[in-house]
Parts: sequence; structure tokens; C-alpha cells
Amino acid sequence: HASRVKQTARCKTLLVLTIDTINPTVKKVEYAVRGPIVQRAVELERELSQGMKKPFAEVIKANIGDAHAMGQQPITFFRQDAKSRACRILQSCGGHSMGAYSASQGIDSVREDVARYIERRDGGVPCDPDDIYLTTGASDGIVTMLKLLVCGEGASRTGVMISIPQYPLYSAALAELGAVQINYYLNEEKCWSLDIPELQRALDEARQYCNPRALCIINPGNPTGQVQSRKCIEDVIQFAAKERLFLMADEVYQDNVYADGCQFHSFKKVLFEMGPEYSDTVELASFHSTSKCYMGECGFRGGYMELINMDDEVKAQLTKLVSVRLCPPVPGQALMDLVVNPPQPGEPSYDNFIKERTATLSALAEKAKLTEQVLNTVQGISCNPVQGAMYSFPRITIPEKAVKEATEKGQQPDMFYCMKMLEETGICLVPGSGFGQKDGTYHFRMTILPPSDKLKILLDKVKEFHQKFTQQYS
Amino acid sequence: HASRVKQTARCKTLLVLTIDTINPTVKKVEYAVRGPIVQRAVELERELSQGMKKPFAEVIKANIGDAHAMGQQPITFFRQDAKSRACRILQSCGGHSMGAYSASQGIDSVREDVARYIERRDGGVPCDPDDIYLTTGASDGIVTMLKLLVCGEGASRTGVMISIPQYPLYSAALAELGAVQINYYLNEEKCWSLDIPELQRALDEARQYCNPRALCIINPGNPTGQVQSRKCIEDVIQFAAKERLFLMADEVYQDNVYADGCQFHSFKKVLFEMGPEYSDTVELASFHSTSKCYMGECGFRGGYMELINMDDEVKAQLTKLVSVRLCPPVPGQALMDLVVNPPQPGEPSYDNFIKERTATLSALAEKAKLTEQVLNTVQGISCNPVQGAMYSFPRITIPEKAVKEATEKGQQPDMFYCMKMLEETGICLVPGSGFGQKDGTYHFRMTILPPSDKLKILLDKVKEFHQKFTQQYS
Repeated sequence: HASRVKQTARCKTLLVLTIDTINPTVKKVEYAVRGPIVQRAVELERELSQGMKKPFAEVIKANIGDAHAMGQQPITFFRQDAKSRACRILQSCGGHSMGAYSASQGIDSVREDVARYIERRDGGVPCDPDDIYLTTGASDGIVTMLKLLVCGEGASRTGVMISIPQYPLYSAALAELGAVQINYYLNEEKCWSLDIPELQRALDEARQYCNPRALCIINPGNPTGQVQSRKCIEDVIQFAAKERLFLMADEVYQDNVYADGCQFHSFKKVLFEMGPEYSDTVELASFHSTSKCYMGECGFRGGYMELINMDDEVKAQLTKLVSVRLCPPVPGQALMDLVVNPPQPGEPSYDNFIKERTATLSALAEKAKLTEQVLNTVQGISCNPVQGAMYSFPRITIPEKAVKEATEKGQQPDMFYCMKMLEETGICLVPGSGFGQKDGTYHFRMTILPPSDKLKILLDKVKEFHQKFTQQYS
Repeated sequence: HASRVKQTARCKTLLVLTIDTINPTVKKVEYAVRGPIVQRAVELERELSQGMKKPFAEVIKANIGDAHAMGQQPITFFRQDAKSRACRILQSCGGHSMGAYSASQGIDSVREDVARYIERRDGGVPCDPDDIYLTTGASDGIVTMLKLLVCGEGASRTGVMISIPQYPLYSAALAELGAVQINYYLNEEKCWSLDIPELQRALDEARQYCNPRALCIINPGNPTGQVQSRKCIEDVIQFAAKERLFLMADEVYQDNVYADGCQFHSFKKVLFEMGPEYSDTVELASFHSTSKCYMGECGFRGGYMELINMDDEVKAQLTKLVSVRLCPPVPGQALMDLVVNPPQPGEPSYDNFIKERTATLSALAEKAKLTEQVLNTVQGISCNPVQGAMYSFPRITIPEKAVKEATEKGQQPDMFYCMKMLEETGICLVPGSGFGQKDGTYHFRMTILPPSDKLKILLDKVKEFHQKFTQQYS
């Protein structure tokens, strides 16, 4: 491009905005799920379409929880059968149009439907629609909550506890907000369990250099796929109460539970079952979205958060803050309504809806099992059961020689590994270093979303690649 | 609610997050367009619907540029006639589903269509789709750009020049980012014109306490409705070049030009007509949206920004930053595509599309004139011509006695005035203090969006209220 050439020729010091004068917190932001590997994958797709020869015929993306992109069909009800509900939603829209702004907190009737959904889910624990804020995907709600929590300077700067491995939205948001990231490690040996002594260790250490104010949990886990037991959730709530931490529960995978004996328990429900000593005092924000579960409707950017025990003055500030961006996208709000207000027995769409939902979740459960099984047949790869969510996060052994070559290139060893796999096989995974991992260990995150036949091919290719890679660098 | 009562009873000091421990930048955020007046208007609507007696039968909202909420019908093409285009857009979606995430920068084919639209609009000035970022409404793009620009501490903290009166998204974003707001005043006596000596004054003063890096322009103006002349835009560009300022041009009202002799000139076009001395060096971000013009599709949160002369490394940082939120809502992207890629002569929807678009814009032009005319018949109200956009911003005389009563109540005098008008007439306006105004002057912002018959009633009521108010406090 002419403009590019001009720009390169031009003296950079004349520009207002350069890499040296950009907001330094922006530079610190990292988001591996769409990092260099994915950029290279997009280039490779373009090169393939231009007829360039590659050792593979197509790029298979197993890097992101994007179900429809991987061929999962939209649930028919969300696209075709929702006319009567659409009318009700339009009734609640300004001028009866999806084109009008909604209330900044979200459409009233949608928030009411969300509240009723939560009550059904949690066995009758009451939910107040005033505690529901609709959001632009769950990401928006999470970042907004973190924004409220950040204050102080130096040793009194807000610290936020996040699991390692974590979903990098958390680290990215904390970097941008200039908050302190406090890492607590999940126990890989015990199926990525969350151990209270580890929480305590992380907290005690952090108190020496910051002011820890919040504890983030992802359940079912991303990228690690574990499902927390009820007992564990109770322990975490007790810990938060004792240490006065604001709890943030990322529960966007609440329908994605596959393993026998595992069940989803919402933090809200457990909190209320623990009695008023906890349910009247522990501050909790819980997040949900249209993007995961059986829906996979990522593109609509629908979501909500429920806020328990939030101070009324803080809530007023939150309402003011979200009003600056006017409202979450109305089509996403409408879709969220369909999710929390699905067809009932006797309604025309009911049978088909149940069939499609069951089929989607069963297929995911099978693929979760298949992924674990095949990966564990590979020497040098060990994979915990994928109890829930949409990802496996296997540990991989990378030979010393490969670690050395990566280091010389200034790359993380698992980035080196994943980039090589992409170039040789067309498979797009995310290096474990993008999520955080114990020093000296290496992982990758792989979604279980490709269709079964493609997933089998993918797993075989991963196996073959790993064996070749290990041989090459031994 | 039981939970409310519990909360009030509970000792507040036990909470993690209170008004005293919230992020202090959040407290500083203000957004008048959805402030206390609107909250009260919503309450009044509820009270009316519950049968409470009021001195009016309905609340008329003239506070926000929300066309569909005010009864403007969606353009048929955007809702019904866009099948073939929808197929093309779906072709570009992952899994051919609107439910898949798009590229973080936006769908490629939509960005290409945007680029072609800009080229047509600007008489052939080339546009590179790589310079286009789709956004969640224009607000999202503006905040993101400001985020990139903010750095430094104390006297080297980034300063951003914004017009006074301004659209409060700017002040809110700058408060949240902790940047310095530099006010330059539009010249009310000369139809809200932008004078270069005033820019210079504001800049020179600001250089004593911060590092001015960007200059924001809204054209056509919000809340002031002026349309900048080509000459004025050229002067602004020269000023930005001389003073090394990053230009941010908020051009979301680009089709909303009503006054004879006025015409929309994009900053991009003027920049390129000024020759390479400018077009190769001045950094410019221009913003557009689906929410205004003849579309009024606010709820979809569609928008784009075009970035001229942005440093490549900065662009890489921007792409990384937006990837953390995954993508703008895909339905909004699809709608943006329809806006920039409207029906062509010979296509089935063409005639109807042109008819609807023309009718919508003509009606707005008439209402702009009507608003100016009627308001100027009122003694104590003086209103500049509404040359463009969707708002009048008349100056109002508030009697000393009313100013005193407001001050005693701790209210801005124009807030006092607007709240009283709302309570007595049901008309919802936004006080001028929410946008900024010269000390000692008072204004309100009123949209021209209500349907003609309702607008006439509204204007008569405003007139009557103002006369009564003036009498009461004289």
C-alpha cells in the first residue's frame, strides 16, 4: 500500500501516537486466545486459498470456544421458532423496535425473565430483577466489576486473585486497569482442584505488597475444564467471608458438565444454603452469557451479571457507569431472553428444542471423553478429565533441546511448540503460557468443539506431531 | 425488598465495596443524557401507569437521540429486504452463523464495504479496509482511541481538547481514564462556530499543566447542531498539524444536515484535498455509527472507525486491545454493512429505500426549522439554527430568584429548571450543565425527534412552562 510505504518513510518522531507514547497499560495487555498463533493461522488460511502448497489441506481452529464457527448448528428455537417471544420482547422495546436504545441496565422484561430462570436453577432461592444487569457478553460484565473494585496506589493498590491457569480476559483487564494480579494455582495433580491452603498462601503473600479485594473463580473451568464440588464452593465462600473478599463467579459454562458424578452448583445457591451469616454479608457477582453452553451464540454478545449484597450506593455508581455506553446490544438481550425463557412442554418448539439441546450437549460430552482418552495415549502428553466447559488443557513434555531453541528465539517453549504444530499440521491451539502455568511446566489449550470426525483427525495429528517433535529434539 | 432492608441494617463497614472504597475515577464519571432527570422521567412513567394523577397525561422524552423510541419507523430495507446481502454477510461469518465470533477488527467483507462507502462519500479519496475497525456503536471506538492516547503523570498527563458544549461521553471517558479535559468553547453568538483563536487559547493555557495530545471535534455538532464549513475544517486540520495533535472526528450525524448552504465535509476528505503535507502526517480517527442519520438503529450498537496515518505498531496494539473483548456484536456489523451498502438503482428495494430515507430526513429538516422558530418566539429563550444533527441547544434566561433557590438546593439552575419542567409538563430534556456551557449561561438540550404533532405540543408546552417559570421567579 502506498500509505504504508509513506508511513515507513516518514519520520516517526512527528507522530503524536507511537509505541513509545502509547498508554503503557495497553502495552501490558495480553490475550493469547487471539494472539500470534491465531494471526498466523489466518495468514495460513489466506495462503492456502491463494493456492500455496502446505503440508495440510486446511487449518483446524481449536483455539477458541466458538461453537458455530466449528459447525455447531444454531438451536432452531433461537432462530426461527421464537415469534411469540419476539413480540413480547419488542413490546418492551422503545417504539417497539430493536433499533431503540434499551435501559442501560437492560430491558426490564428480560431482567425479570433472567431472575425467574435463576430462581428455577437454584431451587427457589429468590432473585431480584434489580440485581440483574444485562451485559455485552460476560466479558463486559467482568471488566466492569473489576473497574469498580480498583483503587489505591503502591502497597494499597487493589489486588485481585485469579486462578492459574486462567482465562486471559482477567489478566488483560487487570493489566489495563493497573490492578495487581494475585495468582493462586489450581492443583493439576488433583484434576485442577482449587485448594484452600493455596488460596491462603497466595493471599498472605499478596497482602505484603497490595490490598487484595476480590477473588475470581471460573466454574466450570476455563481453560482447565474442571467442575467444582459443592464442598469446594462452600469452602471458597467461607474463605471469602473470613478474608473479606468480593467474590466473582464466572459461570458461563453452567450447562457444560459432562463427567459422571459432577454437577453444576451456582455460587449463589450454595451461598444461600449456608444461611444468613453468609447470604447477608458475602458480596458476589455471577456472570453468564449466550456464548457457551448448548447455545454457542457468541456473535450476539449477550450476557448478564447478578449482584448479591452489593451496596446500594455502589449500584447507583454502576448504573451511572454503564449508562455512558448507553445499552448492551438489543439483539443480544433478546437472545439472552430466549435462553432463560426456553420452550415449555406443550409449546410447538418444545420437542425439537429438547432434542437439539440434548444432542448438542451429548456430542460435547462424547468429544470431551474422546479428547482425554486419545491425548492420554501419547507419551509425553497427560490430560486431566474434561469434566466440563469446552477445553482440554493437557500437560506436554517439551525436550530440553526444543526449550533451548525456543529460548534462543525469544519464544515461550509452548508457543514454539504450537507455532510449529500450526505450520506443519494446520492445527491452531493456544500455548499454555497464555493462560499461566507453573514454572517449568508446558501445556496447550484445545477446544473440544470440532465435529467428531474432524476432532478424531485432529487428535491423531496432534499425536503424530508430538511424537515427531519429541524425536526431532531428543 | 427483604434484601434491601437487610442491607440497610447491616454494618456497612463489613462490605468490601462501598462508595468510599470504589474506584475514584468511576465516581468522577458523569453522563447527563441518562442522569437524574431521566431517572425521574422513568419513575413518572411508572407512576402514571399506576394511575397516579399528574398535571400531564404522558412523559415526552426529548432527551436522547433515540429515533425509533420516538416512533420513527425502521427503514424497511434494514429489516425485510436485505436477504441477498444477508447471505453475503453470512458467507463471511464463521460457520456461516451470526452466532460465531467475528475477527476482532470486524468482518472482512463488511470492512471492505465500509471502505468503498467512504471512497464514494469522499469523491474517490482512497480508503484501505485495514484502516477500518468495526465497533460497538461509535462510543466504543471513541473510548478505545482515548484509551490509547492516555499516559504520563502530573504535568505530563495526557490532555484532550473537547468542545464546550460537548457530548458527555467525552468527559465521562476522560474522567474514567484519568486524563485531563481541556475545554475549548464554541461561539454561541456565531451559531456555535469553532474559532481557531479559542482553540489556541485553550491549548496554550493547558500546556502549563498537562500534555495536550488530541483534539476532538463533533460535526455536525452534538448538542449544538451546527455544521462546520469546509474552511473551518481546513483551519482545524492546520491547527492540529502545527500543534501536533491527534484529531478525533465524531461524524455520526453525517447525513443529518438540514440548513440551506450547509453541507457535510468529512475531515478525511478535506485532509486529503490539502495535499501530502497534511494527508501524510496528520493522525486522524473518524467515527460513524448505525444509530443516527436516517437509520436511527441505536439498539444494534453498530459502528466503525477509520484510522488515518496511525503508526503500525500502535495499530498492532489496538488490534490486540480490541481482541480482549473478542468482537463487536455481529448483528450490528451486519446492519453497518447494509448502511454502507444500500440498494442500488434497479434493485427491488431501491425505490422504497430512497423514498423512506428522503421522507425521514425531510421530516427531520422540517422539525429542525420548527423547533428553532417556535423557541425563538419565547422571550428568554434564544435558539441558534439547528443546521444539522438531532438537537437544539437553546439558551435560556433563568431569573435570579430561581438561581438562588436552585443553589440553596445544591442543584445547577438549569437542572432545577428541567426537573421542574418534567414534574409539571412531563417533558424530559437534558440540562445544559450536563454538556458544559459558559459560566453564568444556561441551556437545555432538546431532541427534534418526536413526531411532528407531538413536537408541536411539546414546543407549546415548553413555551408555556418558560413563561410561567419566569413569572413565578420574577
